[in-house]
Amino acid sequence: MQIVELDSRLQKDSYILGTMNESSLLLSRNAHFPWFILVPDTKETEFYKLEQEQQHLLLSQVNKLSAFIERRFAIDKLNIAAIGNIVSQMHIHVIGRHQKDPCWPGVVWGCEQFKAYAEGEVETIRDQLEMDLLVEFKAAR
Amino acid sequence: MQIVELDSRLQKDSYILGTMNESSLLLSRNAHFPWFILVPDTKETEFYKLEQEQQHLLLSQVNKLSAFIERRFAIDKLNIAAIGNIVSQMHIHVIGRHQKDPCWPGVVWGCEQFKAYAEGEVETIRDQLEMDLLVEFKAAR
Repeated sequence: MQIVELDSRLQKDSYILGTMNESSLLLSRNAHFPWFILVPDTKETEFYKLEQEQQHLLLSQVNKLSAFIERRFAIDKLNIAAIGNIVSQMHIHVIGRHQKDPCWPGVVWGCEQFKAYAEGEVETIRDQLEMDLLVEFKAAR
Repeated sequence: MQIVELDSRLQKDSYILGTMNESSLLLSRNAHFPWFILVPDTKETEFYKLEQEQQHLLLSQVNKLSAFIERRFAIDKLNIAAIGNIVSQMHIHVIGRHQKDPCWPGVVWGCEQFKAYAEGEVETIRDQLEMDLLVEFKAAR
């Protein structure tokens, strides 16, 4: 049960896939990359101020998402980041990158290239998460 | 004792401050931001493939560096990231950002603004790390 409300900018720019434990799991609307966003249930804005238990739980979610992205998408590198200069609500990017994606080797933030998801693609990703992460992931439908 | 050699690009773009446990601690040559880089002693390129013990140790180094940056510099936000699209050797950025820095609110990667450190400034940071992190940090001089 998530207590902290999701920032409106995150809601606008992403699909809400579901939850992993108490974190919301989002997917960026930009289909150029498998770009996932974990939003932990906290009002802290800096990662280092979280309790160790919550840090370790988040880390395990990042690990599982990373493995999921490597398994399900053709990628060359993972990019993981907590930035928050624009949206201060804490959120962690876990992004699969490919040498032929339109922003490579630059970062995705500030890169203007955009492609929308085709119908059904987001639902496929949600199904794959349910299959691979099992009880860890609860889909939002 | 670090086993893995430091990538030549990281050496060129950074000052080697010292070590935190088995990680090298670097400082970007760009003085626009307090931009630290932790290089763990590993040949893995993806964070999620590290053993849990090494992940947790790195996390504790990120936490201590984050607190150090907040204490010693005037910053509004921390940016933490593992990217590695250009330099594949695993390295974690821990950067203090200010709303008046020349790349705000964008990210530092890909931002062209550069300022060199003045004489003595890097040594001051090294001294502060020794004072604040105590046995955790071994200065390279």
